[in-house]
Amino acid sequence: MDGYSPIIVKDSDDILLLDQRILPQKKEYLKAVDLDDFVYAIREMVVRGAPLIGIVAAFGYYVAIRDAGSKKEIKIRARKAKEKLSRSRPTAVNLFYALDIMEKTLNEKIDILPSEKLKKKLRAVAFGLWESQKEEDLAIASNGVEFFKDKETILTHCNTGSLATGGIGTALGIIKMLFKKGSLKMVYVDETRPYLQGARLTAFELSNEGIPYKIITDNTAGLLIAKGMVDGVVVGADRIAANGDVANKIGTYMVALAAKQNNVDFVVAAPESTIDRDIKDGSEIVIEQRSEDEVLNCGKCRIAPGDAHALHYGFDITPSYLISAIITQKKIYRQPYEF
Amino acid sequence: MDGYSPIIVKDSDDILLLDQRILPQKKEYLKAVDLDDFVYAIREMVVRGAPLIGIVAAFGYYVAIRDAGSKKEIKIRARKAKEKLSRSRPTAVNLFYALDIMEKTLNEKIDILPSEKLKKKLRAVAFGLWESQKEEDLAIASNGVEFFKDKETILTHCNTGSLATGGIGTALGIIKMLFKKGSLKMVYVDETRPYLQGARLTAFELSNEGIPYKIITDNTAGLLIAKGMVDGVVVGADRIAANGDVANKIGTYMVALAAKQNNVDFVVAAPESTIDRDIKDGSEIVIEQRSEDEVLNCGKCRIAPGDAHALHYGFDITPSYLISAIITQKKIYRQPYEF
Repeated sequence: MDGYSPIIVKDSDDILLLDQRILPQKKEYLKAVDLDDFVYAIREMVVRGAPLIGIVAAFGYYVAIRDAGSKKEIKIRARKAKEKLSRSRPTAVNLFYALDIMEKTLNEKIDILPSEKLKKKLRAVAFGLWESQKEEDLAIASNGVEFFKDKETILTHCNTGSLATGGIGTALGIIKMLFKKGSLKMVYVDETRPYLQGARLTAFELSNEGIPYKIITDNTAGLLIAKGMVDGVVVGADRIAANGDVANKIGTYMVALAAKQNNVDFVVAAPESTIDRDIKDGSEIVIEQRSEDEVLNCGKCRIAPGDAHALHYGFDITPSYLISAIITQKKIYRQPYEF
Repeated sequence: MDGYSPIIVKDSDDILLLDQRILPQKKEYLKAVDLDDFVYAIREMVVRGAPLIGIVAAFGYYVAIRDAGSKKEIKIRARKAKEKLSRSRPTAVNLFYALDIMEKTLNEKIDILPSEKLKKKLRAVAFGLWESQKEEDLAIASNGVEFFKDKETILTHCNTGSLATGGIGTALGIIKMLFKKGSLKMVYVDETRPYLQGARLTAFELSNEGIPYKIITDNTAGLLIAKGMVDGVVVGADRIAANGDVANKIGTYMVALAAKQNNVDFVVAAPESTIDRDIKDGSEIVIEQRSEDEVLNCGKCRIAPGDAHALHYGFDITPSYLISAIITQKKIYRQPYEF
């Protein structure tokens, strides 16, 4: 992963998480030693990105039971781990998907395997989720290249690369593969306020990969699209409803509106696990509200008056009719969406 | 103006400009003593806002000739002033409008009035532009209140208040008068990256006026509008084409798209002088490109990787079909726009 894997599991079983809050200025790994460290890392966005959150939660679940003495203690700790990790962030479905798999494995194996083997099994399942994500990313990228073919300029929002998945990325994985295939000339990167995952993280990855890019403020996407400077838009997803409505990083909806208005393809790239068939449409998706301080400040700079308040939603809903295609590892879905 | 007039002309003829780059954290006035100070103040955005730029340019024109000895020197200096001030910022029409009036006055009076009286006349014309703006702001606000009537929540972009006009403001003037009339409960303020005129300046004015508001990142406007949290949107304009297309602060277009999609009124408020009948539509409006550093940094914080580049357009074009009404001091224009 070119020296910036968001998670490192050492032979000693030490687990290190790349602190994405301080990239690209500083590259520091935090050692996560107990359940609370993992909950903190997800809630405070040391790690972020829907697929990565799932993988890290799985490792957190494993670490929570790693030192348990008895099977009874394993059970108690596992229940607590699932409860705490589930509450760390509400919008991305991957978190719940990963925890369900860990819990299912535990329930299936706890009466069959001795404690140490059970722990090893859970560790292997967490690794398996990560490995699957890497393979899924590659398959998504292949499908994405098939869709975009010889496009030269792509706009993206937020970060959906290695830092978001632990693989090559979803939407950004497509961009990386398009560049390797030779057609891509320029990536326009929404800075993605307030957390600046675009200006900080996507820019960091594209710099590392040697892919030409320019950062824009989020409110500039409409102008570039209207001026004909953008051949296609590709973004990730935190949750996809059964009708194709997509919850993704705040601002996605406005980019989709601009793309639709100007007949530019607006594409969502995500693993199948992001599709939540249990919810009918976007209106049922819980949208996380985060601290107003992240809006009232930019990095460490206070930008608003001392008595100001802010409203901070982390995500928005893009209705399916604005989405040209949803690309997973399995296929390129098109309207009307049926999963 | 409640202690925050963007321009102060003292009895001594000293001219002070409120440095809007460092508000709200610091309230400092810069003394502008010669032409270059005025050019600097406009170009570097010590002052900004289309109407205020015009007023400040007029005072700059006056200051340029204030100490000239002969009429010949007045002529030479005036020509240079118009040339330099015209090049300070390209998008707002008010700058050129104000300079044209100053030049017209000079040409009409230079052979009639003695030098000192001519200078006094030009000073009076600059003051006249300012006074007119104050009256126009009040008339715009009245028309705006008639349009919005009993709306409770209004969203606005950028700063269009006293700091942008020297009066009560255009779009923000409407908001202030709506609040005084009693219906307005909440203003949603786009932070307006990269210069943060919303988070810094509009928030500062609303705090001063005691009007309830919340700051949002620019990319959040679509979600709030889609959720039904916004009764109406009102913004200013830097230039209005003959067909009603509007150049305004970058990001305006994307807000207009979201408003249209959700059947929320999207209104532009500006003085008649912002209407440029000489240009047919928005495609003819020059859009200013500014330094990429304003995007790569937020305030004094570097946010992007060291080798990153950015694209920084200061304005975008909102096509007239997205605009419910254009409100000037004269009337409420509606589609199809004919001025």
